[in-house]
Amino acid sequence: QDVKKNDSIRINQYGREVKWLSLNGEAQDGILNFTSDDKSYSLWFDNRIQFDGGIFSNDALNPIGNGATIRRARFAIKAIIWNNWYGELDLDFSGSAVELKDAYVKYTFDSGDLNIKAGHFRESFGLETNTTSRYVTFIERSLSSKLDPSRHLGIQANHWKDKYILSGGAHFNTVGELEEVTLSQDANKDFGLDEGYAFTGRVVYRPIIDNDKVLHLGVAATYRTPQTTAEVPNSFRYSTRSYSSINRKKYIDTDDILNVDNTNMFDFELAGAYKGLMFQSEYKIVNVNRMDDLSSVNIDGFYAQAGYLLFGGKYNYNKAEGEFTRISRGKKYGDLELAFRYDYVDANDFDAEVYGGSAEGYTFGLNYHFNPNVKFMVNYVYTNNDRYANGKGKLYIGHDLNGDLTKDPADVIETNGNGGDDFGMLTMRLEMDF
Amino acid sequence: QDVKKNDSIRINQYGREVKWLSLNGEAQDGILNFTSDDKSYSLWFDNRIQFDGGIFSNDALNPIGNGATIRRARFAIKAIIWNNWYGELDLDFSGSAVELKDAYVKYTFDSGDLNIKAGHFRESFGLETNTTSRYVTFIERSLSSKLDPSRHLGIQANHWKDKYILSGGAHFNTVGELEEVTLSQDANKDFGLDEGYAFTGRVVYRPIIDNDKVLHLGVAATYRTPQTTAEVPNSFRYSTRSYSSINRKKYIDTDDILNVDNTNMFDFELAGAYKGLMFQSEYKIVNVNRMDDLSSVNIDGFYAQAGYLLFGGKYNYNKAEGEFTRISRGKKYGDLELAFRYDYVDANDFDAEVYGGSAEGYTFGLNYHFNPNVKFMVNYVYTNNDRYANGKGKLYIGHDLNGDLTKDPADVIETNGNGGDDFGMLTMRLEMDF
Amino acid sequence: QDVKKNDSIRINQYGREVKWLSLNGEAQDGILNFTSDDKSYSLWFDNRIQFDGGIFSNDALNPIGNGATIRRARFAIKAIIWNNWYGELDLDFSGSAVELKDAYVKYTFDSGDLNIKAGHFRESFGLETNTTSRYVTFIERSLSSKLDPSRHLGIQANHWKDKYILSGGAHFNTVGELEEVTLSQDANKDFGLDEGYAFTGRVVYRPIIDNDKVLHLGVAATYRTPQTTAEVPNSFRYSTRSYSSINRKKYIDTDDILNVDNTNMFDFELAGAYKGLMFQSEYKIVNVNRMDDLSSVNIDGFYAQAGYLLFGGKYNYNKAEGEFTRISRGKKYGDLELAFRYDYVDANDFDAEVYGGSAEGYTFGLNYHFNPNVKFMVNYVYTNNDRYANGKGKLYIGHDLNGDLTKDPADVIETNGNGGDDFGMLTMRLEMDF
Repeated sequence: QDVKKNDSIRINQYGREVKWLSLNGEAQDGILNFTSDDKSYSLWFDNRIQFDGGIFSNDALNPIGNGATIRRARFAIKAIIWNNWYGELDLDFSGSAVELKDAYVKYTFDSGDLNIKAGHFRESFGLETNTTSRYVTFIERSLSSKLDPSRHLGIQANHWKDKYILSGGAHFNTVGELEEVTLSQDANKDFGLDEGYAFTGRVVYRPIIDNDKVLHLGVAATYRTPQTTAEVPNSFRYSTRSYSSINRKKYIDTDDILNVDNTNMFDFELAGAYKGLMFQSEYKIVNVNRMDDLSSVNIDGFYAQAGYLLFGGKYNYNKAEGEFTRISRGKKYGDLELAFRYDYVDANDFDAEVYGGSAEGYTFGLNYHFNPNVKFMVNYVYTNNDRYANGKGKLYIGHDLNGDLTKDPADVIETNGNGGDDFGMLTMRLEMDF
Repeated sequence: QDVKKNDSIRINQYGREVKWLSLNGEAQDGILNFTSDDKSYSLWFDNRIQFDGGIFSNDALNPIGNGATIRRARFAIKAIIWNNWYGELDLDFSGSAVELKDAYVKYTFDSGDLNIKAGHFRESFGLETNTTSRYVTFIERSLSSKLDPSRHLGIQANHWKDKYILSGGAHFNTVGELEEVTLSQDANKDFGLDEGYAFTGRVVYRPIIDNDKVLHLGVAATYRTPQTTAEVPNSFRYSTRSYSSINRKKYIDTDDILNVDNTNMFDFELAGAYKGLMFQSEYKIVNVNRMDDLSSVNIDGFYAQAGYLLFGGKYNYNKAEGEFTRISRGKKYGDLELAFRYDYVDANDFDAEVYGGSAEGYTFGLNYHFNPNVKFMVNYVYTNNDRYANGKGKLYIGHDLNGDLTKDPADVIETNGNGGDDFGMLTMRLEMDF
Repeated sequence: QDVKKNDSIRINQYGREVKWLSLNGEAQDGILNFTSDDKSYSLWFDNRIQFDGGIFSNDALNPIGNGATIRRARFAIKAIIWNNWYGELDLDFSGSAVELKDAYVKYTFDSGDLNIKAGHFRESFGLETNTTSRYVTFIERSLSSKLDPSRHLGIQANHWKDKYILSGGAHFNTVGELEEVTLSQDANKDFGLDEGYAFTGRVVYRPIIDNDKVLHLGVAATYRTPQTTAEVPNSFRYSTRSYSSINRKKYIDTDDILNVDNTNMFDFELAGAYKGLMFQSEYKIVNVNRMDDLSSVNIDGFYAQAGYLLFGGKYNYNKAEGEFTRISRGKKYGDLELAFRYDYVDANDFDAEVYGGSAEGYTFGLNYHFNPNVKFMVNYVYTNNDRYANGKGKLYIGHDLNGDLTKDPADVIETNGNGGDDFGMLTMRLEMDF
């Protein structure tokens, strides 16, 4: 076949004669892949369906609706061309809207341990945030991980060896959601505002690393000027849903913190694995520095989690990215993963008069991995919100002197630790990656 | 080639060694497909462009604009992995908006005649609704088929043999349109409302079935609580365009029927084919049960259609799904299909004081099938709306005593059967599936 | 392998036995392609990421925000089936919104030099507009090219030989942006307005054409009735950003020109290339003919550009489309392209009392072509807007007698040629096609 084709000429649709390489089509652990013999060219798809459901306890102060959703409906196309160049286009269509996830170009030097990325992709900040939603341990990431910048436009350099990773980037706006894009374009049109920028870096050190075990230490930092994707110029806001995309309420919400000059954040990572056992934790702190005499605002949080594979499976670690990747199942027919997480975030800064609320969550997870592509996840989460976690004054957080529900922290008669809306939830996910 | 590759190792982008299967790339009747020799893996695309145009008669009471549109611009990726698992992501981009069509995972048991689906897909209700838009006989489905629930989130089991199909599912919201998703998310956020649920089942029996002929009897039923995708909580609404996506008016519209406790629907299917001749019909009835003493609302409708292939082609029937599929052309260069449909829907329930309007339509169709992937369709439709089909009071439906156009059924002087806006239309479609 | 598969039967997901052709997977200059040996079937992808950044001079009268963006995030799938039929679906997802670009079916007659297209695609008007954004010389097209109709629904016939191209089409609305689609659907729903139509034709003549050189002469014309995609029925509007998608201001803007009966436009093309040297120019004129006694409005503009490949590369010309296509690099490691453009547009028609503004731009371009798929572009543009280029009265265009900034051309004290907001910009693009 090759003989027959080698002497034939290819003309592309733009009228140009093209060079061509024969490709081998393969299903690589269920993922369609086309690669040339010399591996200078490779293209693959990366699609993902996450079908989620959630049931919430009835004794919450604010009623919560049960429901189901397509959490992610992802289509991605990724390619290595001309040996060193890589391009990725990753889109989400859940909720019948588009979100531009990754859209970037990467050049990897011949050494293989140094690359430069340019486009829209995740900043090198946050172990859990940088772990793909295919492989995070729980259905939703921890509250504190929602502090991380995640995907932004920019340029990033990455260098890694077995023992370490060095990563640094300069970043601009995000273009991941239509609303943010529109806000930023309007700020440009109406006020001529610069988009804002950020410098972000991460260092990972692995004193122990082999096929069976890893000990991972990391630290990341970012300096950020206010971005025009915010509703109000020169503002910062942290708000998050609570462990489920089905319950749409945002208990924790600082609202717009105004007159922001810059923000800096630090992240400390500690993680490790030994065969079928893993743990992972991060502590994050954000300082929102304001103009004039306004005091800066501090928000911090952390999580710690552990997982265990019951059928003899093994946790795997991705050295280039410095994060956990897909597990190895212990049995051909699957593996059962038990996991627990405690997490906490504190978006109150009483000195700065910011009352975003604080919350802790206890998450119990059970994941069944049918094969490399299909898993079923069940999470039980109990969350304890404080009395300031009232969704900017829109949610009940306790009772007043008359015994009526109140949204005002000042009126709450519950003793410390008992105010706030606390509740449990049972969430499920069926996921297929293909 | 296989020898050379068998001993090489594959590492995926997440740093994991992967198992791989060599795939055969094929164009299967114009559809790109990659399948492994053992057929445990198969992936294919399913794209569709429908370019429509429509011309409307000038004597309608309400002027109708002529125009053209991309009716569907579909991209779908579908895969069988690990023998039993199937995933599908099917998206529509017509109108420069996204609609999430199918996004689901299916597990088929080894017997091949039993499967379970989970995600977003069509409920097993409605023969015409469940027939893909690739293969429906006319450019638009009948008015009564717009009563069917179509795609919703949920879980469904299907079992079939030559003589029968049993199908049943539990369902939740739809996520097919951004507006509905937003309404549902707001209902969750603001009121903590549960999404609503439905149980749906279908039985098909085929007393006659062989390669040349089929007689198909079916019955389906569904019980539904109000869903949060509605504009108003606890409401039900039926409204539909009239045989064309180009004429944007909705003559038939019940508006929001409020205080709904639950809805049940029944569907009766009768269809058959003998070589190049087919017929298909359904009768549907919806009971909208309201709270308190409010009387329930009844809406019903039916259609009956017949088709004939002039160049010796043959109709084909899909036993697993219980519906007609692509025809076989009589000639290599194509086949010409003649078809006729009469349909009727009655969205008036005078006892319940619901005046949604009723309508009947006469549809003449001429389809030229160039090859398995390309067809050209022409439909002439004459529709006879009654005086209540006034688009919630926005459309003219006759003349008053002064001879002026009126939107109020009470003022119409036309005799029974002559009120309402009646008109003809000529619609066309060029379709390519690839 | 072929032997083993030839005797096996394929059943598609719709239950139909299918004919199949074995395909060869190839990377053709970095583009994934699947083609059958007999070339009757071919499918390929055409994805594109353009990552842009821009810095603007500080001395503009209206402050301009610096920023970055994903200018295009394109996914396209294109296929030839059954020898003569071609389908294309081309989508843009930049800004986390969908734009339907191309969605059409094409039939090419066996002679290969005659085809008919139907669907959504570019009208045959405008050399620069019809050149794909993969291959335009500068980051953004000239101001006058924004006058071209670009993509619309319709039917088009194309015939070409070495020496000439004849192209003509009948067109309807555009469906490329959600806002336009919504406006058009509302005009249909609320007023029953016809969509509008257009007839467009183009003739290209090439007195000189061989592998090394080409001289291209072209003329195009279009007659257009007002389209329902406009904000106001029976209106015409020309407005454009200035050489960058990052600066969101539209200095040039005629606002809605009302009571339009029809529009006609002419385009004159002159272009040529000799090895590594090219030039290209167009002159365009629009006549907006209004109803009653209202005088018609004239808008015109032109551009002229030249390019040179420094490392020995060559410009290539696409005979079928009549436009420049991808360059050949002089060196395996790349080629550096120098380019210059002068362009001008005049959207003022004082007689008709239309003051849309006029502008000229000097664009210096430097493009590095790493390989057929990756390039880096840098443009420096200086634009000189006149005093009427005030974005419908929203932008400063000079100083008044008090020395204050004014938006009113009547108050500007600057002498002729000195009014208007003039500024420079440095823009960059990293592009990868795959």
